[in-house]
Amino acid sequence: MDIEKFQKQLDFIIEIDRLKSIKRVSLILDSSRNENSAEHSWHIALMALLFQEYSNDKIDIFKVMKMLLLHDVVEIDAGDTFLYSVQDNKIKAEKENKAAARIFGLLPAEQGEEFRRLWEEFENGATSESKFAKAIDRIQPMLHNYLTKGVQWKKHNVTSSMVIEKNHIVENGLKEVWEYMKTIIEDSVKKGFLKE
Amino acid sequence: MDIEKFQKQLDFIIEIDRLKSIKRVSLILDSSRNENSAEHSWHIALMALLFQEYSNDKIDIFKVMKMLLLHDVVEIDAGDTFLYSVQDNKIKAEKENKAAARIFGLLPAEQGEEFRRLWEEFENGATSESKFAKAIDRIQPMLHNYLTKGVQWKKHNVTSSMVIEKNHIVENGLKEVWEYMKTIIEDSVKKGFLKE
Repeated sequence: MDIEKFQKQLDFIIEIDRLKSIKRVSLILDSSRNENSAEHSWHIALMALLFQEYSNDKIDIFKVMKMLLLHDVVEIDAGDTFLYSVQDNKIKAEKENKAAARIFGLLPAEQGEEFRRLWEEFENGATSESKFAKAIDRIQPMLHNYLTKGVQWKKHNVTSSMVIEKNHIVENGLKEVWEYMKTIIEDSVKKGFLKE
Repeated sequence: MDIEKFQKQLDFIIEIDRLKSIKRVSLILDSSRNENSAEHSWHIALMALLFQEYSNDKIDIFKVMKMLLLHDVVEIDAGDTFLYSVQDNKIKAEKENKAAARIFGLLPAEQGEEFRRLWEEFENGATSESKFAKAIDRIQPMLHNYLTKGVQWKKHNVTSSMVIEKNHIVENGLKEVWEYMKTIIEDSVKKGFLKE
């Protein structure tokens, strides 16, 4: 065993434990607390595995799952950004790029580069895998908001047109599921979880 | 889209959210709280991906990661069992089998059976993949206990021979890493994190 290499892998494993303390705006489904980004990543990796049959394109599901398990680790430095918040995308991208360089840089070069490439592919959203992965990452919080009666939508003055504007990219990954999600958005308005 | 099938997949996704509320004995690394089983599953899936080169046997790492993401969902009904607690293994197995039948039974038949088979393979620990997966599932809490100065080991009167007895199966999956873990156990005794 190359102990220096092993130590770098351990350093990364120890570092990413901090993702368990990154709070998201979404609540867990019993509404008792905010979800954290580590458990969110676990949840959507399994969701991707279950929903692969709804992908518009043929995809490498293993690659998708690796992307989803890794996509949020930059939040350790950059924090979680609420989808509906007004933000400077350039500043966000700069912060996250710096975070990716630092955190994936902890790893042995080859593994660090592989992870960095997966993260960049996810961010760019240009491939079939990243379109699918990004869609899954949007479906889950919509479901959570719906099932927790829109508490966080209401708190942050989110409207149905904002939800559609920010989430219609689900269509690029899973057309049929987007059709279903639109019925959930409608129902949320009807039930008063979401403003028109 | 077969809406009935989709609804079953959704039911499963909603059900497993409860794993985020299953507390483990291990602390997260800043010692601020107990780890939950969902974020633990995320952590060890990435650990497996990074450590695959240390596997004794050639393994299908995608299968290992699926096992690790799924292995704890039975705890939603059966609860987490502390590795060092005195327990009736027969009762534990019965509870977990019942939980597996109920929870994987929420899914469409084919997916439910696939997940159930993965879970059983993990539990039986007979294949190269499950030996590796089980080892990873043991390495992480040892690391957490070491890095949180043995607070939980001390609280539960765990001794170094108990740690070795319960964790030497790491050797069946990752021989070299087990050698390293033994140095951590020794160091834990030296530093007073663990009784001799």
